[in-house]
Amino acid sequence: MNEVSVQKLLINYKTLEEFKLFKEYGNQELSMLEDLQNNFVENDSESPFYGIYYGETLIARMSLYKVEKKYDKYFEPRHDYLELWKLEVLPHYQGKGYGEKLVNFAKSYQLPIKTNPRINSHGFWEKMGFQKAKYEMERDFGQNPLIWLPEGIHEKNIH
Amino acid sequence: MNEVSVQKLLINYKTLEEFKLFKEYGNQELSMLEDLQNNFVENDSESPFYGIYYGETLIARMSLYKVEKKYDKYFEPRHDYLELWKLEVLPHYQGKGYGEKLVNFAKSYQLPIKTNPRINSHGFWEKMGFQKAKYEMERDFGQNPLIWLPEGIHEKNIH
Repeated sequence: MNEVSVQKLLINYKTLEEFKLFKEYGNQELSMLEDLQNNFVENDSESPFYGIYYGETLIARMSLYKVEKKYDKYFEPRHDYLELWKLEVLPHYQGKGYGEKLVNFAKSYQLPIKTNPRINSHGFWEKMGFQKAKYEMERDFGQNPLIWLPEGIHEKNIH
Repeated sequence: MNEVSVQKLLINYKTLEEFKLFKEYGNQELSMLEDLQNNFVENDSESPFYGIYYGETLIARMSLYKVEKKYDKYFEPRHDYLELWKLEVLPHYQGKGYGEKLVNFAKSYQLPIKTNPRINSHGFWEKMGFQKAKYEMERDFGQNPLIWLPEGIHEKNIH
């Protein structure tokens, strides 16, 4: 684990090809590809993705985006927070601490974090100190939101 | 197919027990159960779920919620629209038109619809006339939004 580090991923054809190995490849990646093909974005421009390489291979990734305080519906007091999505480690590399490394990277910003985990990953998120947010239909619809609270930040009370 | 009809589901212990058979059981159902146990909601109060019974068995369901025009970020002109989530047919009853029946029920309101489908259900949604919404990160994060447009409504242009 010592030899690997988390790095910001740049939008280019190589990265977008590597993304195809991840289960949660979807509209976001397709839109990045189109933007690149249509020159709406430059090659090697910044993406919201962070990843871990093992040698030449991208083996884990996640997306992170800072949501501004004024749009916060989860925390009290209202606060800038990180939305974390598409956390995924390729099957062969699972159970070796790479997912943990990515989440710890996100935590290092010391901002509250919100994520919507995939089914069956609750054990992992609990181990990482995340807790179930109270469900609020008009905000969450089909999501199962989990949050992580740094010192001094609380969950917004919705009842 | 003629004998079955779509009905609004009421929140009670029987329904919440039946929900456990569906893969997408999550925070929403747990929160409904807690609300019932704590008397925050009355037994048999309305839920956002619609379902189809085959005899005594709940075999298909979906959630529907009308989002007000002022919160609309998907359509042009801005319009009240339906958020549709947790569409699911129990495995034994799949491929018999029950999912279609639920979606047609939603369409009958003649409002635009937005959903975030599960991976691998794109063929179904395409057949139902849904199209991929342009991906906008700050709005969609990990979603792969699909929309359905009734006459006179267009997708909001985000480029």
